[in-house]
Amino acid sequence: MVLDLRDIFNDEEKYVNQEVTVQGWIRNHRKQKEFGFIDFSDGTTFLHLQIVYDTKLDNFDDIAKYHIGSAITAVGKLIASPKEGQRLEMQATSLKLEGDCPEDYPIQPKRHTREFLRELAYLRPRTNLFNAVFRVRSVAAYAIHEYFQERGFVYFHAPLITASDCEGAGEMFQVTTLDLERVKDCKEVDYSKDFFGKRTALTVSGQLQAETFALAYKKTYTFGPTFRAENSNTKTHASEFWMIEPEMSFCDLEQDMDVMEDMLKYVVKSVMDKCPEEINFFNNFVEKGLKEKLTKLINSNFIRIDHEEVIKILKSANVKWEFEPEYGEDIAKEHEKYITEYFNGPVFIKNWPKDIKAFYMKQNPDGKTVAAVDLEVPGAGELMGGSQREENYEKLVNRMEEMNMDYSGLEWYLNLRKYGGCVHSGFGMGFERLLIYLTGVENIRDVIPYPRTPNNCEY
Amino acid sequence: MVLDLRDIFNDEEKYVNQEVTVQGWIRNHRKQKEFGFIDFSDGTTFLHLQIVYDTKLDNFDDIAKYHIGSAITAVGKLIASPKEGQRLEMQATSLKLEGDCPEDYPIQPKRHTREFLRELAYLRPRTNLFNAVFRVRSVAAYAIHEYFQERGFVYFHAPLITASDCEGAGEMFQVTTLDLERVKDCKEVDYSKDFFGKRTALTVSGQLQAETFALAYKKTYTFGPTFRAENSNTKTHASEFWMIEPEMSFCDLEQDMDVMEDMLKYVVKSVMDKCPEEINFFNNFVEKGLKEKLTKLINSNFIRIDHEEVIKILKSANVKWEFEPEYGEDIAKEHEKYITEYFNGPVFIKNWPKDIKAFYMKQNPDGKTVAAVDLEVPGAGELMGGSQREENYEKLVNRMEEMNMDYSGLEWYLNLRKYGGCVHSGFGMGFERLLIYLTGVENIRDVIPYPRTPNNCEY
Repeated sequence: MVLDLRDIFNDEEKYVNQEVTVQGWIRNHRKQKEFGFIDFSDGTTFLHLQIVYDTKLDNFDDIAKYHIGSAITAVGKLIASPKEGQRLEMQATSLKLEGDCPEDYPIQPKRHTREFLRELAYLRPRTNLFNAVFRVRSVAAYAIHEYFQERGFVYFHAPLITASDCEGAGEMFQVTTLDLERVKDCKEVDYSKDFFGKRTALTVSGQLQAETFALAYKKTYTFGPTFRAENSNTKTHASEFWMIEPEMSFCDLEQDMDVMEDMLKYVVKSVMDKCPEEINFFNNFVEKGLKEKLTKLINSNFIRIDHEEVIKILKSANVKWEFEPEYGEDIAKEHEKYITEYFNGPVFIKNWPKDIKAFYMKQNPDGKTVAAVDLEVPGAGELMGGSQREENYEKLVNRMEEMNMDYSGLEWYLNLRKYGGCVHSGFGMGFERLLIYLTGVENIRDVIPYPRTPNNCEY
Repeated sequence: MVLDLRDIFNDEEKYVNQEVTVQGWIRNHRKQKEFGFIDFSDGTTFLHLQIVYDTKLDNFDDIAKYHIGSAITAVGKLIASPKEGQRLEMQATSLKLEGDCPEDYPIQPKRHTREFLRELAYLRPRTNLFNAVFRVRSVAAYAIHEYFQERGFVYFHAPLITASDCEGAGEMFQVTTLDLERVKDCKEVDYSKDFFGKRTALTVSGQLQAETFALAYKKTYTFGPTFRAENSNTKTHASEFWMIEPEMSFCDLEQDMDVMEDMLKYVVKSVMDKCPEEINFFNNFVEKGLKEKLTKLINSNFIRIDHEEVIKILKSANVKWEFEPEYGEDIAKEHEKYITEYFNGPVFIKNWPKDIKAFYMKQNPDGKTVAAVDLEVPGAGELMGGSQREENYEKLVNRMEEMNMDYSGLEWYLNLRKYGGCVHSGFGMGFERLLIYLTGVENIRDVIPYPRTPNNCEY
């Protein structure tokens, strides 16, 4: 039976001095006259296995020519490595080439820049850095499911193609089966002939639909792709990204923050537990101090403070701001940074001025603020945003009218307030923001397997 | 502390004779002179709680007027129900209205047709049937993640917006930020001005990209939305649906079938274990014999048989076919049905005529067939399809040329065969097909929260 390296390294005592078969790829290869060393990886773990072979093998001369990148089957005995600190290595009794790789293979065992590897996105998971990043992506995604499923949340698949715009937030991608070559010869664009009989676009959020599930299942969460057609070329913007949007009935803003904090700690802890080698690698080669940062987060109590108080602190700070902090206004990156440093830990900023927040947020009795919250995290800025939702039908309608929103097509959303509505809350977390925080990798293009950004849609 | 019904019913012995608080909705309400009965559900479990209240409560007269559909908070003591076979019920000490519901609330405690409820998709998860369906959807999704994660598969988020067409299979939705109103005034459609600088569409499959992960991580799987712009209005077609696409290196067709069989049994068993009430409900009210069907599947050994042998069996059958079975051709629904009945269980049909299968499938030495497989399941027809992938560069290119495919833009896919390629295989399972099988609900529109079909894009 062929074993995965993952299983071998998870139970080294069981496999030491056993003969096993492994299949994977040559990451590096050093040959000497009488023996050779293959740095072998099968991708099932961050750890590699050193395979030692010598002239006792019939095909020694052939093996010595195996190229980096080739796929092989190796049979041999696992022995404790003579080098201290090293784990098991294999003394090969048989090595077979499964798939060759030319000498001009672009992924050589040396340092490649992330920009270079971005151009070779289909090969980069074979490098240590990206192998670690995308495994952490997988493990973090699973931790999120674990967290919610174990607590009885129902996983909701929000629709991707939609005829309604959640927040008016950000431009949307249009989805159509109209033949554009024909459209250009028409007098007008006839959406009745489009696939859905109307104009449709890719969703920017599943929240409104998730609320319908919260009012049936009490607790629900989405985890799926969302889209923004914003033409911004920054390190943190992608046109296609994954979001987690939990939504809970009988839950106010304080309870919402409880879940935000608890979930984040759970996911960070789970990744640290399941990916210790990857986290060590990031800590050593990507972001010094990453491990300390993550450990500190798990052990901290998140501060909860009103937006107004934050502005007071910022105003009284002895700092020359690029953007002057103002009551009633949003805060800038420099302010976020200051506040998390001021409190030396994660900070929930709550009760924001209503005019800079979305229509569906719970209006506070002061008439000026809404029960919204942003989580600011040291070294990452805003990681999540949430709010209590306005459950009062009239207040919600009035707010939409104040904001000149067209709510035709959203009657169902309003009706949730009529048909057994209740205090409910939710939040959203951009999955890639979490990954940037977990790995220390700064560019969103490096935490998505095949990123989509303006003028970039490869693979 | 407020408890979820799920937690109470999971540990009834702990909570019996305890005073607890619950929050949820009134599903039914019977009032008498001196007391009343509320059929209460908080959505966290399929089970309801009967709440009994009487004139000892100050607000008895108000409570008696609470409408069906209203949200309430109930405090009371949980007691073993006097009725045999019934579980805990609550003797209320306090009942409070959280959110009213008008008397013309459309979801009344009576039988509604599925067609009627489809028009009220945002309320249907409050009914027993759909509450069960979408919880099973959630539990099945998690079981799929569990299966692959516990076996070291890396979860791969395939890109949704793509510039390449996987199989040429099915029409695609175009994704654009071009202003159609302007396009109609232009001489030609200028895709260099589109968001990605070229023509893009929604993916029909993440398989090709998943192969890049299989050749880095050995074992990977996708679980995400895919899209087909086919104008077909059948019970089993939706324009937006979720797919699972595992992909494995050093894996041939036989091993591929091992995983298909093992995964399916795991997921079915997991749903039966975690959703016994839901499965009982489906068994009693949706598909008689469902439980037996599922149990039988778990305990069966799936037959493996060549397409050619299947045609032989069909040809020698004493049946008047609507479509005559032919070597070298696809099989019809009636044939699928016959074969699963013939073997009285699930059947893997393998080694299909190459001309009716996709370009990337492993060409068998006979020159006529490819190493493809479809899983046929009694009562469901084709549930999964997979294949060994052609790992030989020249054979793959030749096949693409034979099929007049344009492989510019797919160089990366071909290169996987050059750079340490190896025997690898994978399969795809439409998630909704699995749900139809698991629930007995026949129409795909009833297993997707907000289905998208031709001329239908509501919510």
